[in-house]
Amino acid sequence: MNFCSHCGSAVDLQIPEGDHLPRHICGDCGVIHYQNPKMVAGCIPEWQGRILLCRRAIKPRYGLWTIPAGFMENGETLEQAAKRETDEEACAKVEIAGLYALYNLPHVNQVYVIFRGQLVDGSFAPGLESLETELFEKSEIPWHEIAFPVVTRALERYFDDRLGQKYTPFIDTIAPRH
Amino acid sequence: MNFCSHCGSAVDLQIPEGDHLPRHICGDCGVIHYQNPKMVAGCIPEWQGRILLCRRAIKPRYGLWTIPAGFMENGETLEQAAKRETDEEACAKVEIAGLYALYNLPHVNQVYVIFRGQLVDGSFAPGLESLETELFEKSEIPWHEIAFPVVTRALERYFDDRLGQKYTPFIDTIAPRH
Repeated sequence: MNFCSHCGSAVDLQIPEGDHLPRHICGDCGVIHYQNPKMVAGCIPEWQGRILLCRRAIKPRYGLWTIPAGFMENGETLEQAAKRETDEEACAKVEIAGLYALYNLPHVNQVYVIFRGQLVDGSFAPGLESLETELFEKSEIPWHEIAFPVVTRALERYFDDRLGQKYTPFIDTIAPRH
Repeated sequence: MNFCSHCGSAVDLQIPEGDHLPRHICGDCGVIHYQNPKMVAGCIPEWQGRILLCRRAIKPRYGLWTIPAGFMENGETLEQAAKRETDEEACAKVEIAGLYALYNLPHVNQVYVIFRGQLVDGSFAPGLESLETELFEKSEIPWHEIAFPVVTRALERYFDDRLGQKYTPFIDTIAPRH
């Protein structure tokens, strides 16, 4: 950040009075520009016991598989965001079956919020951001071609939980890859 | 938003190609400035069955009571944010006992993530943003002087859940006040 989005003047990194972190502060109008983590909302959509995954048609991780998920928009709920992303990426209508997982990704300033979902009518197709969409049994999941560690972790735990049919919502943290 | 924070030129509201919502786009360098909801992390801190609340020394809702909570910072986890806020607002060390609640506040572009907490040694004092800090039995909570509806809702449910000693994490949505 170099300029004030309010008045267009240059910003400086300074610790505001009473604060403890440097912020971008406008040298002219004084507006403090806070930067905060973003939420990614997604879901694990099931249809007759199989899981719907999307093969990414966009960077990063082009060509790799993921669950439908994306940045939450202003004015929507997390559930609405998860349903919208499933519609956009997999052209699929999904019922939210429950809150499932929160994952902190502090190294990229993101929090994933993942729901359990059930496809409404079993129909799906690649959206603009997907090369392919496909239903997978657990044994068919392309584990070595999953786009993001958070998706691998969520799917592994989901299948474990499914054995006992008990999906208590939880929070966990993903460390950066080395 | 009027100016590009990257290059300082004027921004326009336009729908980018392949997108579905108007975004602030720089007319010069082309950077798209997305705006997304913010997360508020907080906790319900217990000590010997009583709940620690803070009376706000800042706007909005100056003089009203709330749980320790505030905007999550880049680079931290939700748990770290909740502990930091408890330290800043109530000078109290807290152990996170578990994820408790998510509340969508779509009318203000916020999501609250609330944990259950236990004070480590029972010590607390008003931080810079608090006029007072105090432990309350359920019957002593100043229900008519709570700062935000989300806090009232979370505390009411917490006391209900405490009767059965079962605190399954959940998500709910708060509508605007009329």
